[in-house]
Amino acid sequence: MKNRIITISREFGSGGRTIGKEVAKKLGISCYDEELIKKISEKSGFAKDYIEEQGEYTPGRNWFESLLLENDFYGHFNQSVLWNVQKNTILDIAKKESCVIVGRCADYILKDVANCLTVFIHASMENRMERIVKIYGEYEDASPKKRLMDKDKKCKTYYQFYTDTEWGAAKNYHIALDSGVLGIEKCVEIIAGLY
Amino acid sequence: MKNRIITISREFGSGGRTIGKEVAKKLGISCYDEELIKKISEKSGFAKDYIEEQGEYTPGRNWFESLLLENDFYGHFNQSVLWNVQKNTILDIAKKESCVIVGRCADYILKDVANCLTVFIHASMENRMERIVKIYGEYEDASPKKRLMDKDKKCKTYYQFYTDTEWGAAKNYHIALDSGVLGIEKCVEIIAGLY
Repeated sequence: MKNRIITISREFGSGGRTIGKEVAKKLGISCYDEELIKKISEKSGFAKDYIEEQGEYTPGRNWFESLLLENDFYGHFNQSVLWNVQKNTILDIAKKESCVIVGRCADYILKDVANCLTVFIHASMENRMERIVKIYGEYEDASPKKRLMDKDKKCKTYYQFYTDTEWGAAKNYHIALDSGVLGIEKCVEIIAGLY
Repeated sequence: MKNRIITISREFGSGGRTIGKEVAKKLGISCYDEELIKKISEKSGFAKDYIEEQGEYTPGRNWFESLLLENDFYGHFNQSVLWNVQKNTILDIAKKESCVIVGRCADYILKDVANCLTVFIHASMENRMERIVKIYGEYEDASPKKRLMDKDKKCKTYYQFYTDTEWGAAKNYHIALDSGVLGIEKCVEIIAGLY
């Protein structure tokens, strides 16, 4: 595969999406984030909100655990379908063009088939709390910290279930950056400079 | 503390030492690596080889474990003395001048007292094997892979024992780089550019 892909894995609230968009803009290539969700929605029939949440943040379970712990056969079935559609959509995109792909285990899916630069963006709890309140506002039923801890836990479990590797271990990425300390702009500059 | 410090944690064989030296050269500041070992040797009376190995690669044990598992009271005692001398030497250096410090948990020791850029350098097993054979040659009694796995394990245990945080987790560093994929020169350029 001759296309060059930048995959951006990120902690919720770290600005990874913004960094992905800015890098793509700087390099004149597409950024697949919302666009990817749209494609997956078209292919699978699932609603965008469902994909947004279930396609990255659902604790993976095998069918036995789903039945035993959640008594949720359809949940498990949907999740497997969604994973396969996501996987094939990402593989199709990578075949078609050089681009930035945000989230959805793209780093793992493209590991052995594409020319990838794999990036992980993270930031401190304080920085992320500040960011999500600014972007999404306050929630009545959960503090920003609770929301982040919940997302982190689900994201980690999902990634580990589907990739069998550790989410957030430096070794799994070519470059990992603290966007809170380095700043969004500097992260964009470094990543684009590596392309 | 007004001095600005770059701490470089690294996997054995990843070229982190070379990167540290080159970054310091580029920025016109000191690099503490062998120089740090020399200082610790002068203060503690321990031989340089002993510090080199025990000051980063000894699985930390509390006194009870040392007695129980290894029946080695002096080993535990030496290790504690060494950790304290290392810690104070690193704190003294950071008070004195802006510099690069390679290894020895400097990132953790300076966490709340200095203006630090914390870096982690890693590379794939293949890249590191190639590098250590080129630099240190082949060993009769252990394959390059065995040597690296042994160092990784000890280093991880040592770090976790003394810092109570996870070695190699992206979150613990401002920037983590795969020197095998990005190349030593590019790593130097990025780190020096962040200073």
